[in-house]
Amino acid sequence: MTSTVRIGLVGMGTVGGALVQLVQEQHDDIAALTGVDLVVQRIAVADVTKPRAVVLEPGVLTDAVDDVLAADDVDLVVELVGGVEQPRKWVRAALSAGKSVVTGNKALLAAHGRELFDLAVDHGVELLFEASVAGGIPLMRALQKSLRGEPIERVMGIVNGTTNYMLSSMTEDGADYDEVLAEAQALGYAEADPTADVEGHDAQAKAAIIASVAFGVSLTDGDVPVQGISSVTATDIANARRLGYVIKLLAVVERSGERAPYEISARVHPTMVPIGHPLATVRGSFNAVFIEGGAVGELMLYGRGAGGRPTASAVLGDVIEAATGIAHHSVRPLPALRDAVVRPPEASTSAFYLDLAVDDQPGVLAEVAGVFGANGVSIRSMEQEGLGAEATLAFITHRASERDMAATIEKLAALSSVNRVGAHYRVISDE
Amino acid sequence: MTSTVRIGLVGMGTVGGALVQLVQEQHDDIAALTGVDLVVQRIAVADVTKPRAVVLEPGVLTDAVDDVLAADDVDLVVELVGGVEQPRKWVRAALSAGKSVVTGNKALLAAHGRELFDLAVDHGVELLFEASVAGGIPLMRALQKSLRGEPIERVMGIVNGTTNYMLSSMTEDGADYDEVLAEAQALGYAEADPTADVEGHDAQAKAAIIASVAFGVSLTDGDVPVQGISSVTATDIANARRLGYVIKLLAVVERSGERAPYEISARVHPTMVPIGHPLATVRGSFNAVFIEGGAVGELMLYGRGAGGRPTASAVLGDVIEAATGIAHHSVRPLPALRDAVVRPPEASTSAFYLDLAVDDQPGVLAEVAGVFGANGVSIRSMEQEGLGAEATLAFITHRASERDMAATIEKLAALSSVNRVGAHYRVISDE
Repeated sequence: MTSTVRIGLVGMGTVGGALVQLVQEQHDDIAALTGVDLVVQRIAVADVTKPRAVVLEPGVLTDAVDDVLAADDVDLVVELVGGVEQPRKWVRAALSAGKSVVTGNKALLAAHGRELFDLAVDHGVELLFEASVAGGIPLMRALQKSLRGEPIERVMGIVNGTTNYMLSSMTEDGADYDEVLAEAQALGYAEADPTADVEGHDAQAKAAIIASVAFGVSLTDGDVPVQGISSVTATDIANARRLGYVIKLLAVVERSGERAPYEISARVHPTMVPIGHPLATVRGSFNAVFIEGGAVGELMLYGRGAGGRPTASAVLGDVIEAATGIAHHSVRPLPALRDAVVRPPEASTSAFYLDLAVDDQPGVLAEVAGVFGANGVSIRSMEQEGLGAEATLAFITHRASERDMAATIEKLAALSSVNRVGAHYRVISDE
Repeated sequence: MTSTVRIGLVGMGTVGGALVQLVQEQHDDIAALTGVDLVVQRIAVADVTKPRAVVLEPGVLTDAVDDVLAADDVDLVVELVGGVEQPRKWVRAALSAGKSVVTGNKALLAAHGRELFDLAVDHGVELLFEASVAGGIPLMRALQKSLRGEPIERVMGIVNGTTNYMLSSMTEDGADYDEVLAEAQALGYAEADPTADVEGHDAQAKAAIIASVAFGVSLTDGDVPVQGISSVTATDIANARRLGYVIKLLAVVERSGERAPYEISARVHPTMVPIGHPLATVRGSFNAVFIEGGAVGELMLYGRGAGGRPTASAVLGDVIEAATGIAHHSVRPLPALRDAVVRPPEASTSAFYLDLAVDDQPGVLAEVAGVFGANGVSIRSMEQEGLGAEATLAFITHRASERDMAATIEKLAALSSVNRVGAHYRVISDE
């Protein structure tokens, strides 16, 4: 027995177009595998006269978005426009009209996720968003379903393909930031205004969503301190490499404490990853998410984080799940998200890398080490590079708080024997 | 609002014990995240007097399995015993009594999956089995839900930790098969009788399950040709490495044809994996599954394939999903599996590696190459190692059928200039 489920789509850009094409190609297989007959009933677009790559029945395209959101002949709404305030109204309208919604809109969820999830529960419908983080990688479903009972400790993700492409190029070719940015723009991997990617804002929204889903709490992008890659230099990458690390832009989400309410820390920053770590092998524009849990141990999911067809594949998985629920009149509402207890950024902890240009004379190391110690930061390793006026000390610390590390850096900068405080990075360690 | 769901467990070995412990530890978090209050109501074991590592309420343990399978105060049955015929009866009894079932039993599903899935559909209950393949890695849910609309082309998995540990040791230490087997046995990674692992039978059952789930067809372990790792030598590994490959035992599942009914091929064999391929980086006892789809592109899931707590984590994810369905009276039955059109093993295709000990004299290569060509096998690369009586030719072919490759090998062996046909392996290539 096959049930027909009618999709209303808002937006038909790269992902929307790929989704419609995929539904057409896979229609019969989906029906055979799930018993659901998917129909693209209506698509709201800004310009109905614009030529489209996919062939559509007459009357499918409309420029009246309400013909999708509130129409009696639409069972399920897919929002693929982007932006925040307009999609927020649309998703609210669709949920309020009793329709399940699938979206790939990370900015919307990072800003207003809680309100929308609550609305979905109130109306007994589903709000699915696999495509919002890490494109085709089935991360959301893994966190929400497979790992729902898992004591997740930490999730670290390479969730922005543009910056991973750029850092990979800098690592492999020794090129400088400006060079690889220009190259990435020429290849279409980076936008003309690359700010959202290179300053980490894209990853920031994704970190908020990962934290919300992994820990069942409400976090917004405003809770996520962010540092991008525009200050990463070829020298930093070479220094990291000499010590056995590669530099990756990571979204890091951690839980601390033994019992609820746990403290949650979410942040985005360039990070030194040991070359033997699975995340270090993720090259080019690929994404990967590394999960550490008290029972499951180490888990990594790897794949395409962007692009029309990979992202449409994730949207389609959600569409089929929501459609199956509609076909069987079976919704499984989740409890509301709880308030997050956000760990103050200065209290979050990490191992650190720090390099210092110093006077190469007896007693300097003792003085420098004394500053670390006085501020509660314990040194794990130190290496001197160069001699005389060129001498640089590279330190890796044990786990320390941001607060203690900031105080250490401030005091080191004030020493007369320290000529320059160079780069500092968080470091993934086993501690 | 919280709904109580009562679990009946059959078997309390390593995984069962870890599951009970995890349910106890995570009970409150699970209730907060899902609204389900999980209770371990009853556990059937062979010996109720045996001391147990977890603390249980009096009356929970029983040696009467029917007190679990058919009891009115059990909502959900978890089978964690292993074997085939007894668990088959138990799972049938539980499903027939209207209870959803969670199992990690790969042998049972590879032999009788279709019958059990049909029974679940008939009784309107769920049969979940995430833990049966690749332990803690959320592969089954990814294939069944996230990728349900994806045109999956191929799935290749390192799904046996013992053999991956052994091959990794051989690769990294240059050790021989017998040495690493003894070491793996000493460390508890391999059993006293290692046949099921090293001859590939464990991976064979998992390949049948992966094929069934990925393509929605019924395949049994009897449909999966298997070759283990006991014939892999240190020399083979060194030869592979020189050419830029590592040898991994892979379960490979492929679909061919453009429209349903597709031909399905599933097989298990040692395989040469290019060192730049994500599967090549999977070391030690870790598992990983690499998925290629027409829309999603390349996807890899990596993690712990065995062990009490990782496997229990996967079981717990299924328990929570089934319990949520029970709490909300919401079951989403799947259509029955279809018959598989199994591609005849001799028609399945791959690139191949083959080495030959030959007389080092003019004309031999032409003669050998002529045999490849006459049998329809196209050579991609050839390298000579050694000189004179020691000369070895190592070939890598383009994609060819098993049938053509077998004919080529037979004809080569008959040439007077070929002193010995050495090892041959399937090779992962981009074709």
